Amino acid sequence: MDFSFEEISAGEHARLKALYSPFTQSVRRLMKAGIRNAADENALREAQELIEAAIEKLGGEGDSPQMRFAVGGRPVVWGNPVTGFRNAIAPPLVMHTEPDGLWWSEFELDDAYQGPPGWVHGGVLALVLDQVMGEAASDGLTQPKFTGTITLRYLRGTPLGRLRVEAAIERTDGYKTFVSGHMSDAEGKTVEAEGIFIKPAWARDAG
Amino acid sequence: MDFSFEEISAGEHARLKALYSPFTQSVRRLMKAGIRNAADENALREAQELIEAAIEKLGGEGDSPQMRFAVGGRPVVWGNPVTGFRNAIAPPLVMHTEPDGLWWSEFELDDAYQGPPGWVHGGVLALVLDQVMGEAASDGLTQPKFTGTITLRYLRGTPLGRLRVEAAIERTDGYKTFVSGHMSDAEGKTVEAEGIFIKPAWARDAG
Repeated sequence: MDFSFEEISAGEHARLKALYSPFTQSVRRLMKAGIRNAADENALREAQELIEAAIEKLGGEGDSPQMRFAVGGRPVVWGNPVTGFRNAIAPPLVMHTEPDGLWWSEFELDDAYQGPPGWVHGGVLALVLDQVMGEAASDGLTQPKFTGTITLRYLRGTPLGRLRVEAAIERTDGYKTFVSGHMSDAEGKTVEAEGIFIKPAWARDAG
Repeated sequence: MDFSFEEISAGEHARLKALYSPFTQSVRRLMKAGIRNAADENALREAQELIEAAIEKLGGEGDSPQMRFAVGGRPVVWGNPVTGFRNAIAPPLVMHTEPDGLWWSEFELDDAYQGPPGWVHGGVLALVLDQVMGEAASDGLTQPKFTGTITLRYLRGTPLGRLRVEAAIERTDGYKTFVSGHMSDAEGKTVEAEGIFIKPAWARDAG
């Protein structure tokens, strides 16, 4: 496994983010229009032709390039399905960290992430919690730490809209890092989670 | 919560699926091109203009319409982020069921779903397992059953590419349905999961 990162300057990162973020936002808007529209067959075909023209303009679907950069030693994975500013699957979450080790984000989920009517899909909440708990375990992906076990308790339905996620390390035992996290809406917690993140064998000698 | 479904004929469903599936497939291709392309700034801007023209052709981002249909009493949630043929987030999975109660699907995940380099994001595996275990618990969404608790054990990294997911009910105890599931690649199991799915209080009197 290749964990190397190409190091770029903060200025270059800001330039790339400003370039790709609005583009990806348009793809997200299209994704939503694709779910919701009531266009007739002709309009749908014409829209599809425009999309195919856009793909061609980009040079096709492309291969998988180096999508991992580091700014000041901190990785930026722009293809990540939760936080990546080039991945339309990602809401995307912007991560924040506090001096006491808390990792958190506030974000919105709309009906592209829906499970039961009006509620976020339980698996999407698991996806977001796994990412944020992994960020906490690995100090923002600066260390290789993989999810070993994760348990999620759904206290009640999580409504679509504005949400907050938090995660922090509880304790470390050898190569295992124990992390807790939760999701909340304006009324309080909706999902509680606990996870054990593992430093892989090949990384253990590095300390 | 509105759990009603508009009933449509199998023929009408087949017509809608044939109409929307290739359109959504183009949106998925665009999503991948968005992650991978190395287009210059001008090409990116021109592609974005084409995307915005496609959104306009569809009538904008739209509101949230009725996206739940039933065919022969079996729900079809076309906006679902795992199985929906109108949701570009969905790979999408096509679900199969066996007479003994096994629910399964074979599908491909590419780098739009990537966590560690070359591997599927752990949270994406949780998303897929939650969906398939929920299908098993609810007999294909014919009963309201919500995820109460889910635990995932990651046995090893799951490579991008062709995967298989399976789920089945282990036992039922009152309003709780215990479900097990797993993910596997060509070499065997990569993730094991156990979940408790809950019939909500408002649905319990209905038997």
